[in-house]
Amino acid sequence: MVKYSNVTLDRTFAALSDPTRRALLAQLSLNESVSVSELARPFPVSLPAIMKHLDVLSDAGLITRAKTGRTVACRLSAGPMEEATDWLNKYQRFWSESLDRLVAMVEEDEE
Amino acid sequence: MVKYSNVTLDRTFAALSDPTRRALLAQLSLNESVSVSELARPFPVSLPAIMKHLDVLSDAGLITRAKTGRTVACRLSAGPMEEATDWLNKYQRFWSESLDRLVAMVEEDEE
Repeated sequence: MVKYSNVTLDRTFAALSDPTRRALLAQLSLNESVSVSELARPFPVSLPAIMKHLDVLSDAGLITRAKTGRTVACRLSAGPMEEATDWLNKYQRFWSESLDRLVAMVEEDEE
Repeated sequence: MVKYSNVTLDRTFAALSDPTRRALLAQLSLNESVSVSELARPFPVSLPAIMKHLDVLSDAGLITRAKTGRTVACRLSAGPMEEATDWLNKYQRFWSESLDRLVAMVEEDEE
């Protein structure tokens, strides 16, 4: 039987699979702390939809939220991305190999 | 308005968010070509469930399948992982910063 459970990786990759969530993280990478309303402004979706995306990011440990009075501020918490990158890096030689094969094919065609 | 659509990244991260699919890719990284029945053997799920996972991986461009007679063989196709890694690498300095902050906190506690 294969041992293959890793809830952190599941959550990280699932959180990153949505373009709105990736764009929210990109915005948070530009400023140390951003309020939810500021974060939501550039997106063509409702504030409740953005709040749900922020819940997913928070559950995955990719953001932290702090409430001051009536304002909720979000911060990027990139730690879980490191494990995701480590997982992907194990496959690096395979994508290099694919590229090598492609280059070889193109060169053969040119001869 | 934020321009943030990238279907390839959506599919790659979604495909990688499932532990069975990651384990299938890990198996394919050990052998150049593996039949579907061999691939399915170590998993405690049904063959149709594995076939569905392979569909998701194939739609994401992470595997290729070739039929010879009655056997379908799968191969790893790691290309899409490169784009996913490139996306994650843009955040590398943020996870280093988190680690630096953690180390600083631990050192402060020790003083």
